[in-house]
Amino acid sequence: MRLLEQTLLPAQEEYVVLRTIPEVVDALQRLVVRGAPAIGCTAAYAMVLELERRDTAEAWMRQLELNGKLLKDARPTAVNLAVGVDFMLKHAKEVSREGGHPRDWTRVLLAHAHAFHAADEASCLALSEHAQPLLHDGSRILTHCNAGALATGGIGTALGPIHLAASRGKRLKVYSDETRPLRQGARISAWEMARHGIEVAVLPDSAAATLLRDGKVDRIFVGSDRIAANGDVANKIGTYPLAVMAERHGVPFHVLAPATTIDPRCPDGASIPIEQRHADEIYDRERRPQGVDVYNPAFDVTPKELVHSIITEAGSFCAWGEGQTTWENYVAGLR
Amino acid sequence: MRLLEQTLLPAQEEYVVLRTIPEVVDALQRLVVRGAPAIGCTAAYAMVLELERRDTAEAWMRQLELNGKLLKDARPTAVNLAVGVDFMLKHAKEVSREGGHPRDWTRVLLAHAHAFHAADEASCLALSEHAQPLLHDGSRILTHCNAGALATGGIGTALGPIHLAASRGKRLKVYSDETRPLRQGARISAWEMARHGIEVAVLPDSAAATLLRDGKVDRIFVGSDRIAANGDVANKIGTYPLAVMAERHGVPFHVLAPATTIDPRCPDGASIPIEQRHADEIYDRERRPQGVDVYNPAFDVTPKELVHSIITEAGSFCAWGEGQTTWENYVAGLR
Repeated sequence: MRLLEQTLLPAQEEYVVLRTIPEVVDALQRLVVRGAPAIGCTAAYAMVLELERRDTAEAWMRQLELNGKLLKDARPTAVNLAVGVDFMLKHAKEVSREGGHPRDWTRVLLAHAHAFHAADEASCLALSEHAQPLLHDGSRILTHCNAGALATGGIGTALGPIHLAASRGKRLKVYSDETRPLRQGARISAWEMARHGIEVAVLPDSAAATLLRDGKVDRIFVGSDRIAANGDVANKIGTYPLAVMAERHGVPFHVLAPATTIDPRCPDGASIPIEQRHADEIYDRERRPQGVDVYNPAFDVTPKELVHSIITEAGSFCAWGEGQTTWENYVAGLR
Repeated sequence: MRLLEQTLLPAQEEYVVLRTIPEVVDALQRLVVRGAPAIGCTAAYAMVLELERRDTAEAWMRQLELNGKLLKDARPTAVNLAVGVDFMLKHAKEVSREGGHPRDWTRVLLAHAHAFHAADEASCLALSEHAQPLLHDGSRILTHCNAGALATGGIGTALGPIHLAASRGKRLKVYSDETRPLRQGARISAWEMARHGIEVAVLPDSAAATLLRDGKVDRIFVGSDRIAANGDVANKIGTYPLAVMAERHGVPFHVLAPATTIDPRCPDGASIPIEQRHADEIYDRERRPQGVDVYNPAFDVTPKELVHSIITEAGSFCAWGEGQTTWENYVAGLR
């Protein structure tokens, strides 16, 4: 597997080559690749690693189950990781049931990984199309973290509609929160927008409140790492206060994600596991002073009532008020 | 003048020696010294620079007025800068009126700078005493940026009561927002707390909302760079959204500052000039990608209604509701 080393962006564009599952797990944990849909695609492809010399059906399947277990444990919050693994396990069972040699099964399985990736690409495009009515010439969109092309298998979720609108000649202005501690907004979203000639300004996360108060933002677009059945949204730390400030200042707050990000078995936000990350992400420039502790959750939960709409490849949903039944029916269909 | 080079903390404790007003202005702008009360003390001391060889009353006074003008223009938001300069100009006029030689006047003026500094030290202690009823054994306090000993002439404003309570045997837990872009919380507040054996944890600014939601904070203490006559508070960027989240989760929000931070001539928050700072503060680790703009205001304004109390050396005030008249009378007395 070749992966773009996103931790080095935008200064360097380097690729890492991964041959084993522990190498992929390490790459996932170091955020070489990040973004829930991209993590899902990575997991799907990684499932076919280490299958050489697994020449019996039993050894082949055992290796796949081990791969799946190790990959699922790599990071806890993005449900897409489990979705990608389970998709591949389901197809592995099907293909092995048809007889033949494991070597050929692996080739078929790789084709399924490509299909999983292609489905994510199609989801990005479809949800981006559904979001087009929200964007006009001159629209000013604030985003948090990176839910763009490098976070997905396609043109992105939160940034997908912006790419699409720009390609159709609309001039947009994007505000990108820096997104501490790992600065995906400053390093990746801003770089991605500027590369495509889209006007972009980066701000400290804590300055978004003033921008909203001053009426400089028309809408907020964010991605998600897991959406609970009731519509609560886990996303990069800082999304929740952003949604609160958006409500205070009357700015619509939209979550854009493929259906693979929805977890129908997770009843609400309180049930979503939140990854705690290392103190070094905060003390990346200097030694942490002796006796200083760090609190560094990677994600937070935005209650559904603060979300104006959740936009997936199936359309635009509101998980509360009049839209609640439609949303519940949609989620029930994903089980 | 010798100043601790705070930009290098906590890795290095180095001092810079400043001999001219342009050097002091540069140090103020680079944030070698920061924090509104400390800026005020710095300005007061700096006023006596460059007075050698100003041997006539006219030349001496002209130099002082030039010093004052250059210092006042160094940074726009903290009113203490102007207060320190005007305090020294007032005493310069008085001392020169009494006759004698400018050389002796400069010595007297330096004594007044020491008095200004001592008054700030006393204010820190008095307001810290007024805040003691808010702190109990086991209290958990969240702070933003650094309003501690290094931001003032004494034990600090927001952190002053914590130092005082700890010295009296109370065990406190301090949460310190990292405070992007310049990380005064991670670099200075955390270091200051840990040096004094006070339990401290640093968090990304955007994680404070989750901490408040989870009921892990009893009170929020912040300093201020300027308080308007109506009680609106300018403080480090990120203070406003923190106050909004505090209200949402029922956590009392307190502003601690000496009276020199109150600007009776500034009617409300909208009239406070907000300093915009350089893009390099956001892109401090890598080159800013071509075509990427930056929005980097140093401060924001918290409306008075979100402030539970403003604590000065004169006591604890509420600028709205039943306390409004008392506050207005207090501010009128400062004119």
